[in-house]
Amino acid sequence: MEEEVSLHYLVASVQLQYGLYSAFMGCFVYFIFGTSKDITVGPTAILSLLVATYDDPIKPGSDYNDPKLAIILAFMCGVIQFVMGVLHLGSLTGFISTPVISGFTSASAITIAAGQAKHLLGLSFSSDTFFESLVGIFVHIRKTNGWDLLMGLSSMVVLLLLQKIQRDSSLWMSHHTEDTPGYLKVVRKSLWFLGTARNAVIVGCTALLVWSLDTAGYAGKISTNGNVTEGIPTPSVPDFADFHFLTIIRELNVGLIIVPLIAYLEAIAIGKAFARKNGYRVEPNQEIIALGLCNIAGSFFSSYPVTGSFSRTAINSQSGVKTPAGGVVTGILVLLSLQFLTPLFQFIPKAALAAVIITAVLKMFNYKMFVKLWQVSKLDLIPLTVTFVASLFLPVQYGTIIGVVVDLIILLYPIARPEIKAVSPSNAILKQEDNLFLPSDRSSPLVQIESCPVLVVQVDRSVRYPSAENLVEKLNNIRESKVYYQQHVIFDFSRVCEIDYTAVESLSDAIADFAKAGVKLYFVHVKLYIHDMLHRANIPGLEIFPSVQEAMQSLSGSGE
Amino acid sequence: MEEEVSLHYLVASVQLQYGLYSAFMGCFVYFIFGTSKDITVGPTAILSLLVATYDDPIKPGSDYNDPKLAIILAFMCGVIQFVMGVLHLGSLTGFISTPVISGFTSASAITIAAGQAKHLLGLSFSSDTFFESLVGIFVHIRKTNGWDLLMGLSSMVVLLLLQKIQRDSSLWMSHHTEDTPGYLKVVRKSLWFLGTARNAVIVGCTALLVWSLDTAGYAGKISTNGNVTEGIPTPSVPDFADFHFLTIIRELNVGLIIVPLIAYLEAIAIGKAFARKNGYRVEPNQEIIALGLCNIAGSFFSSYPVTGSFSRTAINSQSGVKTPAGGVVTGILVLLSLQFLTPLFQFIPKAALAAVIITAVLKMFNYKMFVKLWQVSKLDLIPLTVTFVASLFLPVQYGTIIGVVVDLIILLYPIARPEIKAVSPSNAILKQEDNLFLPSDRSSPLVQIESCPVLVVQVDRSVRYPSAENLVEKLNNIRESKVYYQQHVIFDFSRVCEIDYTAVESLSDAIADFAKAGVKLYFVHVKLYIHDMLHRANIPGLEIFPSVQEAMQSLSGSGE
Repeated sequence: MEEEVSLHYLVASVQLQYGLYSAFMGCFVYFIFGTSKDITVGPTAILSLLVATYDDPIKPGSDYNDPKLAIILAFMCGVIQFVMGVLHLGSLTGFISTPVISGFTSASAITIAAGQAKHLLGLSFSSDTFFESLVGIFVHIRKTNGWDLLMGLSSMVVLLLLQKIQRDSSLWMSHHTEDTPGYLKVVRKSLWFLGTARNAVIVGCTALLVWSLDTAGYAGKISTNGNVTEGIPTPSVPDFADFHFLTIIRELNVGLIIVPLIAYLEAIAIGKAFARKNGYRVEPNQEIIALGLCNIAGSFFSSYPVTGSFSRTAINSQSGVKTPAGGVVTGILVLLSLQFLTPLFQFIPKAALAAVIITAVLKMFNYKMFVKLWQVSKLDLIPLTVTFVASLFLPVQYGTIIGVVVDLIILLYPIARPEIKAVSPSNAILKQEDNLFLPSDRSSPLVQIESCPVLVVQVDRSVRYPSAENLVEKLNNIRESKVYYQQHVIFDFSRVCEIDYTAVESLSDAIADFAKAGVKLYFVHVKLYIHDMLHRANIPGLEIFPSVQEAMQSLSGSGE
Repeated sequence: MEEEVSLHYLVASVQLQYGLYSAFMGCFVYFIFGTSKDITVGPTAILSLLVATYDDPIKPGSDYNDPKLAIILAFMCGVIQFVMGVLHLGSLTGFISTPVISGFTSASAITIAAGQAKHLLGLSFSSDTFFESLVGIFVHIRKTNGWDLLMGLSSMVVLLLLQKIQRDSSLWMSHHTEDTPGYLKVVRKSLWFLGTARNAVIVGCTALLVWSLDTAGYAGKISTNGNVTEGIPTPSVPDFADFHFLTIIRELNVGLIIVPLIAYLEAIAIGKAFARKNGYRVEPNQEIIALGLCNIAGSFFSSYPVTGSFSRTAINSQSGVKTPAGGVVTGILVLLSLQFLTPLFQFIPKAALAAVIITAVLKMFNYKMFVKLWQVSKLDLIPLTVTFVASLFLPVQYGTIIGVVVDLIILLYPIARPEIKAVSPSNAILKQEDNLFLPSDRSSPLVQIESCPVLVVQVDRSVRYPSAENLVEKLNNIRESKVYYQQHVIFDFSRVCEIDYTAVESLSDAIADFAKAGVKLYFVHVKLYIHDMLHRANIPGLEIFPSVQEAMQSLSGSGE
């Protein structure tokens, strides 16, 4: 399957060998540090797409992009993953929900497919988003190269046929019994192998065809990948000297968060799926450390960011690979290809590669998720749709960030907008079972209470910074509203379990606002450590009472 | 005060007139749409610092930066603020807590001061962060220009003196009585005016000095601002044609979120402070719409992003300006300066401007916040310190983003890591007061219960996407732990009020994991709409029962 490894890299428009450079170190390092028995590490379509936006052409007008920044990204991505693993921060990926992942994946699939469509047509322009590719194709459509189009379309038809053959023969093989004739078994196994190796078959056959055309005098008719550097890359430190540290931060920006997280998400999703199937468990923190080491080690061999690849892992698993050393075999095969096969790569037609990539990625477009969310949870359609649409018009990493933010807003809205309930004091006291007391030395406090213009407010959750300003706003609204005008307010803190400095400051503002209006704001049922915190903050005019009754006692006393 | 307006713009190393370009449209537009009676809109030191990172030199080696991208940022910032206002999203700023704001402001202050220190020394190099400025000064210190240093230091001494005079005279004036002699009142009022106008005084006097030195044959000894374009800018559409839309997104990236939010935060903080002092209220959504319109309108007059300026607002207020039309007067003064005073600007020494900026911004460094948080809320020291340190080593907008993310992690940690409690069924039933029932037609269900290997788990809050994976992990841990091995599990959903698709998927995974291990996972006390959602998701093997008893009835039935 070593050819497949190189294919994805057309997405990033770098020279073909970088795909192979990315495909061996990860296999060796993962074998040592990984916890999944099935994962094969290497470049993936989605990572290629993410990395593609950080590639600039080597020089203006060049067909190939400069891989330096992408290799630095691999190194940085590795360091960030390693640190995340050590700090047990892998669960941060929990903040990327299934709808966001699905929207991102589907948008990536059609962005990659649209980006490859130009190679099917033999066109050449640069595009980072689905929208740009679409516009580019419309603008350049008259320059379509008939040879490339023919090559691309026929490759695609053959690929789809081989895919069907693989699926069918796999089905037949599952129905084999002891009575099945031996020749039939051999034929079906061969068909299955042909179908499984379809990408390699297409790439090999079309390269052969181009070579034949070349020798027959039709050189240059079909666009090919051109010069490929031969041999295994010599290890070298990533090219940090060419970039200022801040330039790296500024150029890579959100990529420094998105690439490590998405890479980890891909790997852990595959790891868990196969672990579930084969009855073992993966250790998430060890996985992200292993991936980090793969990326760091890889960056010394000119590797792009890598992660667990679903297609290669699946093929390994279907091919009957039952040992984690399968990755090592893959790595060795890649090294052998680099050493011996690279001269042949120059004959690989771009349109055939594009056909391989398109048929591979279109499976990632998950339209069913839209239907499913419509049926199950319509609110989740918002992050899905936002992520999907934003990722079509912007580079997918920005689309994902926007999706995550929208999702967080939906999650945090109730925290940022707490419900405030205003009740009459007698109701508040009756509900406060735990704290209810009517001391005998006070003559019917309830009578005093009713004569006193007081309002009790309660908040439905803890007071933290996102809701702090909103709380002051609501308290002032209550104070200024006609219904409650000039009533003193008792703030019942019994449901407030947590508080932070921003909230303390806002409460201090509220007390000042109330004081200015000549209205009192008292606090009751304050938990001990919140009580301490409020006192340490030295808020002028702060008054805390154990219960509503005592606060009212004080109010009616001051009123007299 | 029109000079002050232009000063801040040295921070961004653009030609001086851009400061003035930014200072008039906002005043007029805010007068029409704003709700604060005090705010004066214009460029501020913090916004200048934020914008500075988006300026590239006009050409390599040029002293001035190209303002095009900054003007586009003003336009985009305006559009984003306007949309936020219309969608009532102003409360999003609640997610930037006081410790983060404080860390950001303090770091900005010393970043700006360090950036200006090079002008005090007469050095010339580019730096975006505090760290870069520091390194630059060490590297270039031998090239210090004695004239500039003398000019800068003496300006600073005079400024500090004038600042003290202003403070003292202000104090004396507050103690004036009817008996105070008239001449004393006049002297003190004059001193107060001199102190308040200290920036203009310094700029004016030093420019005069430079002009005298020039005519005396010492031209060029002191670094000045050089050529300034005269006149009021002609309105023009921001230079979008020079940039691809995606280039704008990629270049401005986090600036597109941070600049509109910080600008709004500055304005609303000032607006609220003065509203509190003068007894009125500002309408946050209208404020952000007004700011958005100021920025959009400004960008057509080559303005940089603008917002409410604390120093100018404070001076206006102290000077006795009592009408919102004060801003209009400021705007007209700026236009007059542009028309008539610009020829004089070329004599303003850079070192004097730097001294003005440094004395102004150092007040923003709030070391007391570290002490305060140490006393009141030590957990809040984490976002403060992270934001502060990150903002010194990275451009401040990245530091702020990092601070916000760290703060969110602290806020969301309990949501992402829910507590799961495993209890024995009898305990679970006894605690479930609301749902407790012991039907008479069943013979002592509690006896059956004890004989059945069952465990009840409860989760302490809603099941949402950040905690979904963690929940499955914990359920599987319980299932696999030696203590509970091979016990069926009943998941008590009574405290789960919200659920989303990611959580539904995770529960489905958990059911599959349990089924594979031959252990049952039942759900009880599921709220009606969550019940509906789980059913619509078609989870294979999902079993929901009204209560623990009925789930156990079914388990013991299947066990027999």
